[in-house]
Amino acid sequence: MPNLMFLRILPFIGALICMLLAIVFAAMVGKKNRGTPRMVEISNAIFVGSRAYLNQQARIMAIFFIVLEILFGIMVIFGYLQWPSLPAFATGMGFSLLIGYIGMWISTTSNSRVTYAAQKKGLGEAMNIAFTAAAASGLLLGTVALFDTAFWFNILYWFYNRSIPDPALAMENVVNILITFTIGASFAAFFMRTGGGIFTKAADMGADYVGKVESGLAEDDYRNPATIADNVGDNVGDVGGMKADSLESWVGAIIATEFLGFLAFKGSQLMVNSIILPMIISTAGAIASILAIFIIKLIVSRYRENATVSKLTATTLAGLLITVLAIVILSYFTVRYILGPDYNFLFWSSLGGVLAGFLIGLFTLIYTDSRYRPTRNISESAKSGPATLVVNGLAYGMESTLLPALTVIGVMLFSFYISRGSSDIKMGLYGVSLSAVSMLAVTPFAITIDVYGPIADNSGGIASMTELPPEVRRTTDKLDAVGNTTAAIGKGLLIGSAAITALALGQSYFSKIELLNLQVLLDFMKDPKILAGLFTGVMLPFLFTSLLIGAVGRAADKVVVEARRQIKDIMSGKSKGDPKTFITIVTRAAQRGIIAPGIMIFAIPVIVGILLGPGGVVALIIGTLLSGFAQAIFMANAGGAMDNAKKKIEEEGRSNTPEHAASVIGDTVGDPLKDTAGPSMNILIKLISVVAIETAVLVTDLSGRLFHF
Amino acid sequence: MPNLMFLRILPFIGALICMLLAIVFAAMVGKKNRGTPRMVEISNAIFVGSRAYLNQQARIMAIFFIVLEILFGIMVIFGYLQWPSLPAFATGMGFSLLIGYIGMWISTTSNSRVTYAAQKKGLGEAMNIAFTAAAASGLLLGTVALFDTAFWFNILYWFYNRSIPDPALAMENVVNILITFTIGASFAAFFMRTGGGIFTKAADMGADYVGKVESGLAEDDYRNPATIADNVGDNVGDVGGMKADSLESWVGAIIATEFLGFLAFKGSQLMVNSIILPMIISTAGAIASILAIFIIKLIVSRYRENATVSKLTATTLAGLLITVLAIVILSYFTVRYILGPDYNFLFWSSLGGVLAGFLIGLFTLIYTDSRYRPTRNISESAKSGPATLVVNGLAYGMESTLLPALTVIGVMLFSFYISRGSSDIKMGLYGVSLSAVSMLAVTPFAITIDVYGPIADNSGGIASMTELPPEVRRTTDKLDAVGNTTAAIGKGLLIGSAAITALALGQSYFSKIELLNLQVLLDFMKDPKILAGLFTGVMLPFLFTSLLIGAVGRAADKVVVEARRQIKDIMSGKSKGDPKTFITIVTRAAQRGIIAPGIMIFAIPVIVGILLGPGGVVALIIGTLLSGFAQAIFMANAGGAMDNAKKKIEEEGRSNTPEHAASVIGDTVGDPLKDTAGPSMNILIKLISVVAIETAVLVTDLSGRLFHF
Repeated sequence: MPNLMFLRILPFIGALICMLLAIVFAAMVGKKNRGTPRMVEISNAIFVGSRAYLNQQARIMAIFFIVLEILFGIMVIFGYLQWPSLPAFATGMGFSLLIGYIGMWISTTSNSRVTYAAQKKGLGEAMNIAFTAAAASGLLLGTVALFDTAFWFNILYWFYNRSIPDPALAMENVVNILITFTIGASFAAFFMRTGGGIFTKAADMGADYVGKVESGLAEDDYRNPATIADNVGDNVGDVGGMKADSLESWVGAIIATEFLGFLAFKGSQLMVNSIILPMIISTAGAIASILAIFIIKLIVSRYRENATVSKLTATTLAGLLITVLAIVILSYFTVRYILGPDYNFLFWSSLGGVLAGFLIGLFTLIYTDSRYRPTRNISESAKSGPATLVVNGLAYGMESTLLPALTVIGVMLFSFYISRGSSDIKMGLYGVSLSAVSMLAVTPFAITIDVYGPIADNSGGIASMTELPPEVRRTTDKLDAVGNTTAAIGKGLLIGSAAITALALGQSYFSKIELLNLQVLLDFMKDPKILAGLFTGVMLPFLFTSLLIGAVGRAADKVVVEARRQIKDIMSGKSKGDPKTFITIVTRAAQRGIIAPGIMIFAIPVIVGILLGPGGVVALIIGTLLSGFAQAIFMANAGGAMDNAKKKIEEEGRSNTPEHAASVIGDTVGDPLKDTAGPSMNILIKLISVVAIETAVLVTDLSGRLFHF
Repeated sequence: MPNLMFLRILPFIGALICMLLAIVFAAMVGKKNRGTPRMVEISNAIFVGSRAYLNQQARIMAIFFIVLEILFGIMVIFGYLQWPSLPAFATGMGFSLLIGYIGMWISTTSNSRVTYAAQKKGLGEAMNIAFTAAAASGLLLGTVALFDTAFWFNILYWFYNRSIPDPALAMENVVNILITFTIGASFAAFFMRTGGGIFTKAADMGADYVGKVESGLAEDDYRNPATIADNVGDNVGDVGGMKADSLESWVGAIIATEFLGFLAFKGSQLMVNSIILPMIISTAGAIASILAIFIIKLIVSRYRENATVSKLTATTLAGLLITVLAIVILSYFTVRYILGPDYNFLFWSSLGGVLAGFLIGLFTLIYTDSRYRPTRNISESAKSGPATLVVNGLAYGMESTLLPALTVIGVMLFSFYISRGSSDIKMGLYGVSLSAVSMLAVTPFAITIDVYGPIADNSGGIASMTELPPEVRRTTDKLDAVGNTTAAIGKGLLIGSAAITALALGQSYFSKIELLNLQVLLDFMKDPKILAGLFTGVMLPFLFTSLLIGAVGRAADKVVVEARRQIKDIMSGKSKGDPKTFITIVTRAAQRGIIAPGIMIFAIPVIVGILLGPGGVVALIIGTLLSGFAQAIFMANAGGAMDNAKKKIEEEGRSNTPEHAASVIGDTVGDPLKDTAGPSMNILIKLISVVAIETAVLVTDLSGRLFHF
C-alpha cells in the first residue's frame, strides 16, 4: 500500500514549486525595459481601466457572496449543510478573484515591455518576455489549484476523521463540503467569464465597427478612443475570465472525480486512495507543465535571432504534446501505485479521455484554421457579401458539433465497457472522470499559451497607439499568431473535459439522491416530469446565450454611438477623446448583464427540483449538458472560423476591399458567440450540477412536503 | 353507442364538400381578368419556372421512392412489413406532390389577376381574388388529408377484419400500415420543404443582395434578372413546401393519435372509436374552416370600396378565432358522442393543447411583430451596423424559445395529471395528441392565409416588373401585410402541434417496442446507450441546419456572382439578362442540397437502432424533439424579427439609409434560418420517429443478433 501521508503532502510540494517559479518568472519580466514614457502611459491606462473594472465586478460579486453565504448559513442552521461549507465557498470564490487580479497585473506590466522588445530586439526576445510573463500566470494558477484542493481535503479529512468514527460517513462529509468549495470557484468563474466576456466583446464590436468599417481606421488606431477599452477587454476577458474559467474547470474536475471515487470505492480499503488520486494526477500535470515551459524557453532562447512564426508555433505545439505525454506516462504509474494493478482499466479509460480531448482540439483546428476548407470557404463567400458569409459561418459552426459529439459519445461508451466486468456504472464514470482530470492537468501550460495571446495583442495595441513604425506592429501580430494553433487545441481540451466533468457531476447528483434512499425513475417515457426536466435543460443554453449576447449587443450599440461622436470630434480636432467613458459604458453593461444569469443559475435547479422532484433535476442536468455542449462548440467554431476568415483576407493584403468589410461584419457577429456566450456554457453546465448537488437534500425535502412525491 | 358506419363515411363527405368548393373557388378566380399581356407573360414565366423546378424535384423524389419501395419490399419478403405498406407509402408521397403541383398552378394563375385588380379596382377586390384562390388551395388540402386518411383506414379495416379474427391484432396491422402512409407524406414534405426552402432563399438572398444592396435597385426591379427566380421561389417554397408540410403535419397528427388510441384502448370496446375520433375532429375542422372562409369572403365583399389593412387583418384574425372556436365546440360533442362521458377529460386535455398552440402563436407574434419590443429594438440597433443587428436578432430568437417551451411542458404535465386517475400514461398522451389534431384541424383555413401571402407577393413582383405606377405596388404590399399577423399565429400552431405529435410518436415507438415484449430501461444514469442516443438526437438539428443553410449559402454565392455579371450587362445595355440561368442554378443547388439530408433521415434511426438498441432509439427521438423544437423556434423568430425590422425601416421611409442596408443584411441572414432550416425541423423530428417505428422490428432483430442486447 502506498504511503497516504506522503500522497497527501505531495500537492503542497507541487504548489510550492509552482509558486516559487512564478515569482522568479515575474521578477525576470520585471527586469526588462518598460519602454518609452508614452508606452508606459498607455500600459498604465490599460492597467487602471482593468483594475477599475475588476473592482466594480468584485463589488457585485461581494453582494452575491453575502446573499449566498446567508442562504447557506440558513441551510446550516436547519441541518441541510455542514458549517465548513461556509469558509470553503468563500475560498473557492476568493482565490478565483485573486488570480484574476494577479493575472491582470502580470499582463499589464508586461505588455509595454513586449512592445519595446519587439521594436528593439525583434520577435525572439518579444516572445521570450511575453511567454515568461504568461508562464508566471499559468504557474500561479497551478499553485492555487493544487493548494486549494489539497488544503480543503486535508483539513476536512483531519476534522471529520476525528469527529466521525465511521470512515465512509466521514468521507461523505468531506466530499460534500468539497462540492461547496467548487461552487465558489464556479460562481466566481461565471462572473469573471461572462462579465469579462460582455466587457471585452462590447468594446471590441463597438471599436471595430466605428473604427474599421465606418471611419476606415486601422485596428488600435490612436485616433479611435474606444481602443483603450478594447485593450482593457483583452485583459479582463481573455486573461481574467479565462483564468478563472480554467481554475474552475480543473478544480471542478478534481472534485467531481473525488466524489465519484468516494461513490465507487465507498467503504473499501481504497476509498481514500481513490479520492487522493485526482490530486496526484494534477500535481503530475503541474510538473509536466513546468518541464514543457522550460523546454520552450530553452528553444526560444536559441532561436532569439532568427525566430519565425512557424518555428515558434511548432515549439508551442511540441510543448503541449510533451505536457500531455508526460501526464499520460505519470498517470499510468500513479494509478498503478495508488490503486494497484487491478484497476489498470481506469488508466485506459483515462487515456481514452485524453485522446478524445485531443481529437476535439484537432476538430476545432480543422473548423477554424484558415488552412482548412471551412474557413477558406467562409472567406471565399465574403465575395457575395456579409450575409452569405455569416450564413456560411453559422452553417460550419453547426456542422462542427458532429465530430466532437461523436467523440464524447465514443469515449463514454468505451469507458463503460472497459470497466464493465469489474464493477458498476460508477466505476466507469470514475474512469471517465479521471480522464477529465488528466486533460485539465495541462492547465498551467495551456493557460501560459492562452494568456500569452492577450499580452501579445496588448503589446500590438500599444505599438499602434504610440505610432511606432508598422514593422513593430507586424512583429507583435506575428507574436499573436504564434499561440493561436496551440490555444485552439487547448480550448478543445477544455470543452471536452467540461462535458465529461458535467457527466460525472450528473452522476454524482444522482448518486447523492440514491444515498437519500430515494427511488427515482429516470424513464422519460413513464414519467412526464423527467421529460419536462430534460426539456428545460435543453432550452437553458439558448436562454443564457440570448441573455449574454443580448447584453453585448446592447452595450455595443452604446459604444458605437459614443465612438461615432468622439471620433467625429477627434478627426475635426475639436477634442482628444475620452477613453474612460467607454470603460464606464461597458463596465456598467457587464455588471447589468451578469445579474440575471447569476440569479437564475442558482434559482433554476432549486425551482426545477421543487416542481419536478429529484428525477426532474437529473434530467435538467443532462439536458443542459447535451444542448450546452452542442451550443458551446457551435458558437466557438462559428466565431473562430469567421475571425480567421477575416484574418486570412487581411493577410492576403485585401484590407480595403468590400470583402474585408464583409469579413469584419462576420467577425463581429461571431465575437460574442465565441468569447462571451460560448465559454460560459461550460460553467453553466457545471454550476447547474453543483448547485443541484448542494441543495439536493433541502430541495427533495421541500418538494416532498409540497407535492408528496 | 355511436353508429360506426356513419362515422367511417363522414370524412369522405367532408372531403367531397371541400373538393366541390375548391373547384367552385378556382372557377371564380378563373373568370377574373388575367391582366395585360405583359402581366400574363411574367406570370407565365413564373409558372414555367415553378413547373421546371417541380419536375426536377419530382425526378429526385422518384429515385428515392423507388429505392425505398425496394427496401420496403425486401422487408415485406422477410416478414418485417405487411405488403399494403407499399401502396400506402406511394399514395402518401404521391398526394403530397400532387397538391404541391396544384397549389403552384392555382397561385400562378391568380397572381397576375390580383395585380390587375389591384391596379383597376383597389385593395378590396385584389384581396377577394387572392383570398379566393388561396381558399381553393386550402380546401384542396383538406380534401386530400381527409380522403387519404379515411381511405386507408377503411380499406385496411375491411381487409384485416376479414382476414384476422382477433380485433386487436387486426387493428395493430391497420395502425402499423397507416404509419407507412405518413412516412410517404413526411418524406415528400421533407423534400418539398427543404428543396423549396433552399431554392427560394438562395434566389432571394442573391437577388436582394446584388439588387438592393449593391446596385441600389428596388425589390423586384425589372432590371434585376434574378427576380423571376425569386418569384418562382415564393411558389415552390412558400406554396408548394408549405402545403406539403401542413399536409404532413395534419396527417401525421391524425395517425399518431390513431396509434395511441389503439394502444390506450387496445382490446376495449372503444378501440375502433378511439381510432376514428381524430378523423372526425379533422372533418369538423374542415367544416369550421369553410365557415370561416365564407364569413371572411362576406366581410371582404362588403368592404370592397373602403378596405384598409387593419380592417382586413382583423377580419382574417377573426376568421382564425372562429375556426378554432368552432373546432373546440365540435370536439366537445364529438368526444362525448364517440367515447362517452367517461372520457370527458380527453376533451379537456385537448382544449389545453389548443390553448397552448394559441399561446405559442401569440409568443411568435410578440417576438416578430414590429409593434413589440424585440423587433423594435432590432430595428433600432441597425444604427450601429449590421453586426449588432444580427447579434440582437439571434439573441431575441434564442430568448423566444423560453415561453413556448414552458407552454409545451405545461400542457404536457396538465394532460398527464388530468388523465391520471382514469388510466395510464398512454391515455394521457392520447389526450395530448388529440389536441395536436384539434390544432391542425384548422389547416384548411391556416393554409388559405398562408398561401394568400405568396400570391400577394407575386402580384407585387408582377406590378414592379411591368413598371406599373408605384401605388399599385403599395396596394399589393398592403395586401401582403394583411395575412402576416394571422400567418404568424398559424405558424405557432404548427410548431406547437409538431412538438406534441413528435411526443406522441416517441411514445408510439416505445409502445411498439413493448409490444415486442422487450424490456427497455430508459434510465440515462444506468445505461450509457440511452445517454448516447439522447446526445445524438440533440445534435441532429444542428447538423441538419448546417446542411440546409450551408446549401443555401453556397447557392446564394453563385446567384450573386451571376446576378452581378448580368446586371452589369443589363445596366450597360449589352443584354436583356437571362432569368432562366438563375432558375437552373438554384434548382441544381436545391437538388444537391436535399440528397444528403434525405439519406440521413432514413439511415440515422436505423444505424442508431443497430448500435444502441431500441432504448437508444427512444432517446434519439426525444433528443431530436427537444433540441429540434428549440432550434425551430429560435430560427423562425430570429428570422421573422429581422425580416420585420427591415420592413419597419422601409415603412418609416428610410429605404436608402445605412440602417436599411444593415437591416437588409440582417434579413438576409435570417432568411435561410426562418424559411429553409426552421420549418424543416418539424419534419425532421417526425420522420426520425416514424422511420424508427417502421423499422423497429427489423432493427431490434439486427441489433440483437449483432450485439446480443
